[in-house]
Amino acid sequence: MKDNCIVAQSGGPTVAINASLAGVIDGVKKSNSFTRVYGAIHGIQGVLEDNLMDLSLIALSKFPMVNTLELSPAMYLGSCRYKLPNYKDDPTPYETIFKRFDEYNIAAFFYIGGNDSMDTVNKLNAYAKEIGSDTRIVGIPKTIDNDLMVTDHTPGFGSAAKYVASTMLEIAHDAYIYNIPSIVIVEIMGRDAGWLTAAASLARTEYSPAPHLIYLPEVAFDEEQFISDIKDKLTTTKTVIVAVSEGIRDKDGNYISATTAAADRFGHMQLSGTGKALELLVKEKLDIKVRSIELNVLQRCSAHIASRTDINESFALGQAAVKYAGENMSGIMATIERISNDPYQWCIKPTSVDLVANKAKSIPLEWISPSKNDVTADMEAYLRPLIIGEVSLQYKDGLPMYLPIDHLL
Amino acid sequence: MKDNCIVAQSGGPTVAINASLAGVIDGVKKSNSFTRVYGAIHGIQGVLEDNLMDLSLIALSKFPMVNTLELSPAMYLGSCRYKLPNYKDDPTPYETIFKRFDEYNIAAFFYIGGNDSMDTVNKLNAYAKEIGSDTRIVGIPKTIDNDLMVTDHTPGFGSAAKYVASTMLEIAHDAYIYNIPSIVIVEIMGRDAGWLTAAASLARTEYSPAPHLIYLPEVAFDEEQFISDIKDKLTTTKTVIVAVSEGIRDKDGNYISATTAAADRFGHMQLSGTGKALELLVKEKLDIKVRSIELNVLQRCSAHIASRTDINESFALGQAAVKYAGENMSGIMATIERISNDPYQWCIKPTSVDLVANKAKSIPLEWISPSKNDVTADMEAYLRPLIIGEVSLQYKDGLPMYLPIDHLL
Repeated sequence: MKDNCIVAQSGGPTVAINASLAGVIDGVKKSNSFTRVYGAIHGIQGVLEDNLMDLSLIALSKFPMVNTLELSPAMYLGSCRYKLPNYKDDPTPYETIFKRFDEYNIAAFFYIGGNDSMDTVNKLNAYAKEIGSDTRIVGIPKTIDNDLMVTDHTPGFGSAAKYVASTMLEIAHDAYIYNIPSIVIVEIMGRDAGWLTAAASLARTEYSPAPHLIYLPEVAFDEEQFISDIKDKLTTTKTVIVAVSEGIRDKDGNYISATTAAADRFGHMQLSGTGKALELLVKEKLDIKVRSIELNVLQRCSAHIASRTDINESFALGQAAVKYAGENMSGIMATIERISNDPYQWCIKPTSVDLVANKAKSIPLEWISPSKNDVTADMEAYLRPLIIGEVSLQYKDGLPMYLPIDHLL
Repeated sequence: MKDNCIVAQSGGPTVAINASLAGVIDGVKKSNSFTRVYGAIHGIQGVLEDNLMDLSLIALSKFPMVNTLELSPAMYLGSCRYKLPNYKDDPTPYETIFKRFDEYNIAAFFYIGGNDSMDTVNKLNAYAKEIGSDTRIVGIPKTIDNDLMVTDHTPGFGSAAKYVASTMLEIAHDAYIYNIPSIVIVEIMGRDAGWLTAAASLARTEYSPAPHLIYLPEVAFDEEQFISDIKDKLTTTKTVIVAVSEGIRDKDGNYISATTAAADRFGHMQLSGTGKALELLVKEKLDIKVRSIELNVLQRCSAHIASRTDINESFALGQAAVKYAGENMSGIMATIERISNDPYQWCIKPTSVDLVANKAKSIPLEWISPSKNDVTADMEAYLRPLIIGEVSLQYKDGLPMYLPIDHLL
């Protein structure tokens, strides 16, 4: 009887992807359908290369507290950027994967990832149908970009949003102290969708209006309008703080980051970041103190300021995936459906993974203010519940205690 | 009878400078020497321009909990970068300041700041002696750079060090997930002294050796040696994480950040950061994935991960300054003297401010490893106690609750 399962992680890291892994482990522990859960190291490549670890054993010995795993950043099982070929073009990897499934009596494969990973889920499910395998293939969403279809939002996004909003407030405190005009530009991740940049709006408090301006990739960026927006804000405040997505583009679709280039000592051109490009633009156009700050990977790995809501949801999605597989569902992804904003209520439902794979969800234009440099109250009402609640990390020697990941080194 | 005092903040912000302010307010409240404490807005300029707020009143009404002030980042009173002229060249500002002291019955002036601010303390004290004023002038140290003389370490440094170490560990988790060789370069503040960069060494755990390499401004940086160091590390690990001070210089004293330049669209040359410069260098010399991360102002404003030790010490220094002024001391700065590393014990003593003003303390060369790319165990033993302990912030709407600073906007 096939009674084991495999779980793997793929794509870019988030603060909550280990919470989904912990949810899968917990789900299996409580399940009547599965006995053993293996972790594939480095995503689907771990299955291809027979690089599996028995998480049932580890769950009992090395980390009795699923807690530590739940709160650890990045990916306990490692990641990959592997795209399966179409099986009609090249069935070889599929044959290896399903041979491995047979060897280990795998009744279900869980893949935690973004829209590329859901492509893998989709393809494996189609192949399983083709060969008559009853191994269920189930997706669990994650991405700080919040750009997956169907699901109300994605695990990892809430924690990244909490980091962005909290950090933006701290940057505001830092910037307000001098009695001279200044501009601060904060570059936030999100190449195609502006969800995370929009979350900077949550930094606003009764006393601090920062960020004063927000620029998203969903609308064309106009440099003259940008300079005009800043000048306008400077008539009422000495400090203008700007949140900008790394992915903003001009009306012809050219990235703003590409319009300014850095030449190394040998004259090779290198792209500079969007924030840096705007910093140089402000310096060029306005005689004013300006600084740019790139939040970089910190917005996806700062587990010490994770959102409790995000961690809880990510864990529940992992558990739900196990339940769905136990009910013989395949080719699906567990999703979050929002019932209400206030009080914040949600439930989990399955969706067909082909509605998610390789697709991306942008911010609805009605949530972007007509001036194109801010978001609406509806957007903030959607975002706010996702950053609520804090985690209680243990600290040792002054450092957050995370789960050791020696096996990835 | 002169029975009031003024407190002000100056220089760059830290996470702990408001804790010293809270310590002064608390000290005054418990003092028999002073009744009222005024806060000067924007440092000594607030005294010059008669921009004072009565903190005794605010302490009782607006923020009954000194707690909130103690844990808020940056500077509640705002800052300035004002350098007093020599009073023999231009006595005007001195006359204004001491006239203000008379108006408000000021028996003591407390200045929280770095070595530039201690220059102000020194000059005001000399002028007071010259004119026979009995207003006491007392300094309270602060700087994330940890480069003040006499004091074992500086308020604000421990919290910045905790941020750097914790963030470095999270960056390591983020970087280890892929099964391909990669380099991550983390740029840390400290133009002339490498203390904060050295604190990255505290990120090392039983399972994570990051940072693998540490470069400080105290020793000359050699590009060829740097590339050779990385190649060497790559023979035993796939991920090499580098901590580098923004202030590293070559043997001729040229900043490394200056050797690579970014040209804007009009061909004007702009200095790029040190981390970016090394990223380009690695790209040029090695065919390997590389990323640079600039911790930027986040390392001096991330109050949500402040060090409890640092906050407690900063508060105690504020209290001690009030006590010293009450004992008629002037021209002094409160300092921390370390009694032992383990158990960590310290006490507070006064020092003559002219031993501190305009001077800077570098890392002792014996705490830098002979290979010049790491620090010694003695350095870690010195640093470790300073990052111990966490703060308990209140959160509201998902954001840390800091003290409103409307009066600076």
